[in-house]
Amino acid sequence: MTSTSRPTEGLDVAALSPAQARLRFRDGLVTPTAGWSRGFAQANLLALPRDLAYDFLLFTQRNPKPCPVLDVLDAGEVSGPILDGDVRTDLPAYRVYVDGELVEETPDVREWWREDLVSFLVGCSFTFEAALMEEGVPVRHVEQGVNVPMYRTSRRCRPAGSMSGPLVVSMRPVPAAQVADVHRRAVHRGVARGDPHRVGDPAALGIDDLGTPDFGDAVEVREGEVPVFWACGVTPQAAVMESRPPLAISHAPGHMLVTDARDSSYLQP
Amino acid sequence: MTSTSRPTEGLDVAALSPAQARLRFRDGLVTPTAGWSRGFAQANLLALPRDLAYDFLLFTQRNPKPCPVLDVLDAGEVSGPILDGDVRTDLPAYRVYVDGELVEETPDVREWWREDLVSFLVGCSFTFEAALMEEGVPVRHVEQGVNVPMYRTSRRCRPAGSMSGPLVVSMRPVPAAQVADVHRRAVHRGVARGDPHRVGDPAALGIDDLGTPDFGDAVEVREGEVPVFWACGVTPQAAVMESRPPLAISHAPGHMLVTDARDSSYLQP
Repeated sequence: MTSTSRPTEGLDVAALSPAQARLRFRDGLVTPTAGWSRGFAQANLLALPRDLAYDFLLFTQRNPKPCPVLDVLDAGEVSGPILDGDVRTDLPAYRVYVDGELVEETPDVREWWREDLVSFLVGCSFTFEAALMEEGVPVRHVEQGVNVPMYRTSRRCRPAGSMSGPLVVSMRPVPAAQVADVHRRAVHRGVARGDPHRVGDPAALGIDDLGTPDFGDAVEVREGEVPVFWACGVTPQAAVMESRPPLAISHAPGHMLVTDARDSSYLQP
Repeated sequence: MTSTSRPTEGLDVAALSPAQARLRFRDGLVTPTAGWSRGFAQANLLALPRDLAYDFLLFTQRNPKPCPVLDVLDAGEVSGPILDGDVRTDLPAYRVYVDGELVEETPDVREWWREDLVSFLVGCSFTFEAALMEEGVPVRHVEQGVNVPMYRTSRRCRPAGSMSGPLVVSMRPVPAAQVADVHRRAVHRGVARGDPHRVGDPAALGIDDLGTPDFGDAVEVREGEVPVFWACGVTPQAAVMESRPPLAISHAPGHMLVTDARDSSYLQP
């Protein structure tokens, strides 16, 4: 599956309501969701069997920066307060893991669904991208129309029961003169994970080559720009790949759940 | 058991380290902990059997204002990253609930301990009292040397599995002219639950009489003062009393765990 299997040219995706966006994905559109339904929170999905739900919820509590939980659906439930839809069909693309191995990437997971699956909706760095753009900070992967680049790091998350794994970060190149704006924006309007994890020095995170991300697409880092890294909601998937639960369903990286919750509800007052 | 069974006159409790404070409680001192070990976070305790831990952790996720989780000890563990001690002995007083009924208030719960108990350490409103006092806002129950007054409200928490219950609030009278300072302080230095839940109008919360709190001690509300209410970490105990787990161990209201974590680690940057 390529990053974009159908064109969205001419479609003002930022102006679509979350329900309109989800309908398109339910109808088969497969595309990264960066920039869609401006003002609404997007979420990482991880659905796990109920008997692993405690370990995972504790993992999120112990690693809140990469795993800010927006909501948790009750076992077997496919909708909830921030999703007036169906979590099995309303994302553009899913990844299905069996025993920690990726077995399928698919736009519909109804055939994999079980009544004991608990869906975790985890906050997404796209929430602060709008704030960055308002501050005049460029967001390169949106400009280039590709998926944000994401990297496994050498830093370990704090484990919880059966769940352990590395911190995954997303990267956005920021002009050196604007790095302070990014920090100010994060602190002033602060949002889940708005504060960068690290500025520059990818080697210190164990990242050898920015040109070969572990998830998503590489983006250009221009002269005078610094790579800035944020804790990333793909971290739970990396934990799944390491912890090998019998079944796990996630979004495909960058292909998020567009929720009915406004970004502003996750901003500090 | 009265609120204070042994005198602490002459003891500068604010200057004691958390380890020194816990040692006194381990040795049998029973007293509310407001004002103890200034600068260090105090925690509400709730220990529950492992098979109820998911429901409770989800309850805290769904009700973060009254239940800001600081840390969760692994099943059977009695210490952890923010507690270099023993959670079974290091609080001044505990309450033991069997099937939701209070069966004992005791300074030591070793005889009740089970290897499947998971201890939740939940943030406490004392954390922002230091910030209030720095702002020149009086904290009446500290002045009066009594326990903070706490009230069950008519507002329901969002349930999670077997866990449900009312919101419990603590109350501090604030001079009307300083209410804005309280808000500014909460927003500016923001901390778990630093933002008041409600200002004035106890009847709207279903509180008929400020003079008869459900937990803790009544305090004087003086001419020109407004009762200000904060979501309270006793909320989990109210959920336990309603949800009737086979066994639950909590702190006695106001008799908190003094942790090794600095308050500042829970303040916004």
